[in-house]
Amino acid sequence: MDPENTLNTYFTDLLPRIEEEMHRIVTPHVTPHAAVSSTAGLDISQPAIFNTMLNYHLGFVDADGSTTRVYGGKRIRPLLTLLCCEACGGTMEAALPGAAAVEMLHNFSLIHDDIEDCDELRRGRPTLWKVWGEPQAINSGDAMFTLAHIALESTIDRGISAERVIRAMRVFDDACVALTIGQHLDLSFENRADVSSDEYMTMIKGKTGALTQAACAIGAILADAPAWRVTALAEFGAWLGIAFQLQDDVLGIWGDPEKTGKQDSDLSHRKKTLPVLFAAEHDAAIRALYFGQPARDGGESPIDATDTMDSGKIKLLRTLIENCGGRAYTEQAALDAYNKSVGALAAAQISGPAADALQELGRSLLGRAS
Amino acid sequence: MDPENTLNTYFTDLLPRIEEEMHRIVTPHVTPHAAVSSTAGLDISQPAIFNTMLNYHLGFVDADGSTTRVYGGKRIRPLLTLLCCEACGGTMEAALPGAAAVEMLHNFSLIHDDIEDCDELRRGRPTLWKVWGEPQAINSGDAMFTLAHIALESTIDRGISAERVIRAMRVFDDACVALTIGQHLDLSFENRADVSSDEYMTMIKGKTGALTQAACAIGAILADAPAWRVTALAEFGAWLGIAFQLQDDVLGIWGDPEKTGKQDSDLSHRKKTLPVLFAAEHDAAIRALYFGQPARDGGESPIDATDTMDSGKIKLLRTLIENCGGRAYTEQAALDAYNKSVGALAAAQISGPAADALQELGRSLLGRAS
Repeated sequence: MDPENTLNTYFTDLLPRIEEEMHRIVTPHVTPHAAVSSTAGLDISQPAIFNTMLNYHLGFVDADGSTTRVYGGKRIRPLLTLLCCEACGGTMEAALPGAAAVEMLHNFSLIHDDIEDCDELRRGRPTLWKVWGEPQAINSGDAMFTLAHIALESTIDRGISAERVIRAMRVFDDACVALTIGQHLDLSFENRADVSSDEYMTMIKGKTGALTQAACAIGAILADAPAWRVTALAEFGAWLGIAFQLQDDVLGIWGDPEKTGKQDSDLSHRKKTLPVLFAAEHDAAIRALYFGQPARDGGESPIDATDTMDSGKIKLLRTLIENCGGRAYTEQAALDAYNKSVGALAAAQISGPAADALQELGRSLLGRAS
Repeated sequence: MDPENTLNTYFTDLLPRIEEEMHRIVTPHVTPHAAVSSTAGLDISQPAIFNTMLNYHLGFVDADGSTTRVYGGKRIRPLLTLLCCEACGGTMEAALPGAAAVEMLHNFSLIHDDIEDCDELRRGRPTLWKVWGEPQAINSGDAMFTLAHIALESTIDRGISAERVIRAMRVFDDACVALTIGQHLDLSFENRADVSSDEYMTMIKGKTGALTQAACAIGAILADAPAWRVTALAEFGAWLGIAFQLQDDVLGIWGDPEKTGKQDSDLSHRKKTLPVLFAAEHDAAIRALYFGQPARDGGESPIDATDTMDSGKIKLLRTLIENCGGRAYTEQAALDAYNKSVGALAAAQISGPAADALQELGRSLLGRAS
């Protein structure tokens, strides 16, 4: 079977199981494992709306609580966990709650990011805070975060040793810290006109690389892989996530909306992505256009940096950034990261269909049509 | 030594060690244990302000990052963990990160609660969101939540077996779920005029009882206590927390501001605490006064339920609620909960100075002067 078919077969087989596992975790009857609670008269059942919010965000129900199944994201991260687990000789069934945990951690961060960024839409539906208000949405994110931990802890019920579960949890929470550092930087960039491309790389390492890294490491740890292999797969995941994000930055400016599904160019929101930051570092005029700083030569800026970008301005900027090398630089950075991920995967010395699928997954992520 | 002195000795000895442990956990050089991170080139250092926010909330620094030591709360919860651990024959030194984890979980919930409730002051200082804005404060709370987990996980480095650490973590995350359910209910009460005293009890079980329960259970688990003793101490903690909260409800209306440190009566914010809810259930006039619902007899309501309460109205309501039995009912409920905690502590069959201190701690919490 060729690698592309192998990956597709895994996708088709695993995606429904990942969805089912997540659904199980956010369904009340299993969440409180009640090691202590019930005996102390403190068994608190989840109110219906509390449960609906979690299921709504994951795409399992509508806002009124009625069952639906809308697109909830690509589920790349849990797939990485399961493939790494199998490639290291582990059982996917045992790792399934760990894979769900990784995806739920990602979704917790999305719930809070949407509040922090005032985003009103996610995957074509109103965001959680838009439907139920900010206070309940913050709290829902906290619940999702907790349930992600509970899911990972529950791998012990599937025959994973306590030592391995703790190792996985430490990697998981290290990723959470990196995630919050990344988000801290991202938020702080909004009000700054002097963000460097180095700072940007640190930010996406935290916001994107840390979680794909943990996704792979956790799969390997749950399979009881030796430390050197865990490290190699962690590195594979980290660079893959970074390559993906940089590729996304290119698509956010030069991608075909029909293919990417993104209606707005990143430029219209004045998003600070690598192509722009590189261009701004090398061209004072672009810096002035985008950040509203006066051009160094004192010349007039053709765009007022505080207004919204219309399509004409976006087109102009797109050309200026490309001519200045911002696109080529980012594409090269994405390719460098991708090559590092390929090298790390080779260093992991794994083979078989799951290893093939991991390789193909990397290729397919970077090969997205611009 | 009499029990009161025993408790005071523990307080004096342990509080600085708890503070020091928490300070260690929010100090960057120890947080990423870097099982995987550093090897993959993803070691992300904490930006200074990120770290300052966490330390500020815990009372270790001022908003400008300069070292201070302001009152950061009573630290009752970590004390429960350490005393339960010692009373079950465990080593406090090994349990210290677990105690810090419990207090940091409490503080994570305070950071998010302050945002959700729009509270601008905490312990006499501007709240985290008031200083750095909501987006960064949400993210800071997430970081505190993560570091609490990392702290508990680190007990494995102090000789606690992996099995015990996982057991403790499952109890910890069960408490987090209960905490978010409690907060969900509390937020939903704000817009409702029909909150029952039963619902209120469920809410405080989640918001207060679950964490004092986990604090005690974790101490016992880390000491490798048998399951029946863990359960008894969990029950002790749960009822103690509930008794404390109910006592707090009484003090919030009838307490002496000089002694409680609370400037505003709970009535001035129309807080829905047990004395009010009991009174509203039994007296239509009070219901009308407080919730703005028309009295059942159609009579005129003497207070407009939408305006702020002045001292005259507060005084009137305080008398009405007391005459209707709201105070006596709540005091009895607090006493019932306290008696349950005493019974559970007896069932734990522990003795020695730490057991004496636990008993005295319960007595002192309920004996706060009204």
